[in-house]
Amino acid sequence: MLVIRDTGKSTSIFGSVNHERHIMFKPAQIILLGYIAVILLGSFILMLPGMTAPGKDLKFIDAVFTSTSAICVTGLIVVDTATFFSFWGQIVILVLIQCGGLGYMTLTTLIAIGLGRRIEYRDRLALKETFSLETPGGVVRFTLNVLKYTFTFEALGAFLFLISFIGRYPLPKAIFASIFHSVSAFCNAGFSIFSNSFEDFVQNPLVVLTLCFLIISGGLGFMVLKEVITKHRILSLHSKVVIRVTILLLLAGTLLILLTEWNNPNTIGILSPGHKVLTSFFQAVTPRTAGFNTIPIRSLRSISLFIMIFLMFIGASPGGTGGGIKTTTLALLLGIVKGVAQEKNRVEYFHRRIPNETIYRAIAQTILPFLLVSVVSIIIMSYQPNNPTQIIFEVFSAFGTVGLSTGITPRLFTLSKFLLMVMMYYGKVGLLGLAIYPVKKDEKECILYPEEGVQL
Amino acid sequence: MLVIRDTGKSTSIFGSVNHERHIMFKPAQIILLGYIAVILLGSFILMLPGMTAPGKDLKFIDAVFTSTSAICVTGLIVVDTATFFSFWGQIVILVLIQCGGLGYMTLTTLIAIGLGRRIEYRDRLALKETFSLETPGGVVRFTLNVLKYTFTFEALGAFLFLISFIGRYPLPKAIFASIFHSVSAFCNAGFSIFSNSFEDFVQNPLVVLTLCFLIISGGLGFMVLKEVITKHRILSLHSKVVIRVTILLLLAGTLLILLTEWNNPNTIGILSPGHKVLTSFFQAVTPRTAGFNTIPIRSLRSISLFIMIFLMFIGASPGGTGGGIKTTTLALLLGIVKGVAQEKNRVEYFHRRIPNETIYRAIAQTILPFLLVSVVSIIIMSYQPNNPTQIIFEVFSAFGTVGLSTGITPRLFTLSKFLLMVMMYYGKVGLLGLAIYPVKKDEKECILYPEEGVQL
Ligand SMILES: [K+]
Ligand SMILES: [K+]
Repeated sequence: MLVIRDTGKSTSIFGSVNHERHIMFKPAQIILLGYIAVILLGSFILMLPGMTAPGKDLKFIDAVFTSTSAICVTGLIVVDTATFFSFWGQIVILVLIQCGGLGYMTLTTLIAIGLGRRIEYRDRLALKETFSLETPGGVVRFTLNVLKYTFTFEALGAFLFLISFIGRYPLPKAIFASIFHSVSAFCNAGFSIFSNSFEDFVQNPLVVLTLCFLIISGGLGFMVLKEVITKHRILSLHSKVVIRVTILLLLAGTLLILLTEWNNPNTIGILSPGHKVLTSFFQAVTPRTAGFNTIPIRSLRSISLFIMIFLMFIGASPGGTGGGIKTTTLALLLGIVKGVAQEKNRVEYFHRRIPNETIYRAIAQTILPFLLVSVVSIIIMSYQPNNPTQIIFEVFSAFGTVGLSTGITPRLFTLSKFLLMVMMYYGKVGLLGLAIYPVKKDEKECILYPEEGVQL
Repeated sequence: MLVIRDTGKSTSIFGSVNHERHIMFKPAQIILLGYIAVILLGSFILMLPGMTAPGKDLKFIDAVFTSTSAICVTGLIVVDTATFFSFWGQIVILVLIQCGGLGYMTLTTLIAIGLGRRIEYRDRLALKETFSLETPGGVVRFTLNVLKYTFTFEALGAFLFLISFIGRYPLPKAIFASIFHSVSAFCNAGFSIFSNSFEDFVQNPLVVLTLCFLIISGGLGFMVLKEVITKHRILSLHSKVVIRVTILLLLAGTLLILLTEWNNPNTIGILSPGHKVLTSFFQAVTPRTAGFNTIPIRSLRSISLFIMIFLMFIGASPGGTGGGIKTTTLALLLGIVKGVAQEKNRVEYFHRRIPNETIYRAIAQTILPFLLVSVVSIIIMSYQPNNPTQIIFEVFSAFGTVGLSTGITPRLFTLSKFLLMVMMYYGKVGLLGLAIYPVKKDEKECILYPEEGVQL
């Protein structure tokens, strides 16, 4: 039985209600262990006979890596999905991606509604209203709603892909490729059954823009999607912030990559100006945090790699399928800088004040990952004889569950692969764990120490 | 006349008191322009005949770079101080360093006391008590006090250096080298009249430990020094935090560098275990933010360079001669993470609560420099054909006013040199500017918007 401790009103994602003081399983622990169980199950299935292409033999570390990458919707690969796995192996990966994407989207939103005690009661009511979770059976209806949205977007995406794929491949392969990539894009998974991702489609606007549409939709988060699609009378503060930051990051990313790569003959240098813009736009969309590419990442200039590292670290929006520290976290950090410059000592957006506790969490949610990603990068650098920039790129890509790669991951040492797996897992679960850590109201909290400043 | 606006009680560092609403010169502007004026004056003097060694010709950009580096107590060099300048040129550099170090130490502390309206009134009283600034003439006495401490430490340091230098060099050179390096170390300037910094003294504990003593003392800040030396009845929260973070950073830095460089034959690999520890300790002291070295920086492993980049960014403590975002800022950032993990939503140290506005400033003081340093690194990378890690190292070294160098600075393009100068200037003045930006109490501040959270 799962009992979630709650000093106020008892809540549980599985409906068990109990007023006991002690917790048998914290929800965080359930989720942490649940993800590991599903990853191991996925690895086991991928090791079964018939999952790989004839003559290919999947090592255990590579099976676990592939399963982790799929469940955490990352897309970093150690073996080529296109040629190494059989059709059935690709189906398994597709299912793992879909479960990973749906699971994350459902869990994060449910947590924000039901368990996110750090969210003000008033906000929680607003969230519950949006999702009609007040009534009995609300969780079931909500989950069905997520499924409905997901499948609608994925079906639309698959149809749009099919238009381009149908003349190019035999019909069965065209259909499978359309479905696979539509799911992979909406779930921000980045897995592709084309060996060179979408490099063959760099000049095909329909394919590229369909990818962008799916990636951005999946990354916005279910609450924003629902508010926008149902034309909710007034957008919540959350949706306004998400939309504004998303647009700004897309514009800035496109412009910067366009400028730095304009003359690079190995990336966009040979393309027409229109295709230059399209390709730069795509490479600004994909680090947040889809992981497809239409130009080879290893050919990008160092400066573009660092721009992408920044975008990968920020990632997508909460309650969606993407990773990273999230657009709202970025907004709060910049809001603090603006507040200090204006001598206001508070963070305001759209005539609303952000609660202090939300700001503190945003800071923790930035510092912890940044330190961890830096430490892991440095550890890998200490023994792995690759270019430091490329190592940093792969580690940020793993943390952000992005999946873009300079191509070094398949040949990394086993320890490095293991560390990348930990980063993928942390990128999906660690921030979630921080968000749902249950409120502890103990005696110590009642002591309010006197204030004293320090010089800065 | 300088008039500083103050809605409460009028204060001015030059003693002019006036209740006017409008500011003729903000103190920030005075300081910003003052630094530029002194830098230009220094460049002009360095260009005079007789300042360079015979046959050497100082370019204008290199004169400005050297003057900026000296006034901002950085120590990055584009020409070898030892061989390029005459004795008189070296004297000028010595004077510029001493002015830069004293000016910064005096200004930051005065600002914290007199103009730091963001500091709580109660804290300000405590500061004023520590420095006896309540009485008339307090500012003069305070400045004399800073001079007394500075010259005492520098005299002691010079004496200790002389013991080792006297047998090694002719007497006049031994005396000059002792004074020059003592001032340079206490001011955390990092300029050396030895071409290879202190690499010849890597196995001389007296010289190395004297350097460490001067660097750490200068970096602690005047308030901490005074409280410790006068055995103030109870240390202020500020001093406790500074001392704890300083010790932790020194220990962690020493240990990490010792571990990563243990077997590196180009750095500490050939030394005895005792000298390995001594050398690692020194290389943990010097990035915060002195800039001397006893082993060649370019021979360090990438991983050690990144450890040093972290230490350089943190830097020394407020009110001292060192740069960086400061130890107290790091303490507050980590305090936020701890607070969030403990569900407390406040930052506490030593049974004291840190005011919200101090925390907001700490965040702004981290994000802005980090973004700026990253952007400048990326810009330089885009055209400068050097190793990206080395470029990042030099830019962080400039921002932290550290002066450690992988050796690429003298051969950088003029634009890169200019950008490094801007970073040095920003590292010394930018954070100061943020700290003293005067409080603006306008109408807008009275609007308190309702709270609304966002998901993270
Ligand atoms: K991905
Ligand atoms: K320095």
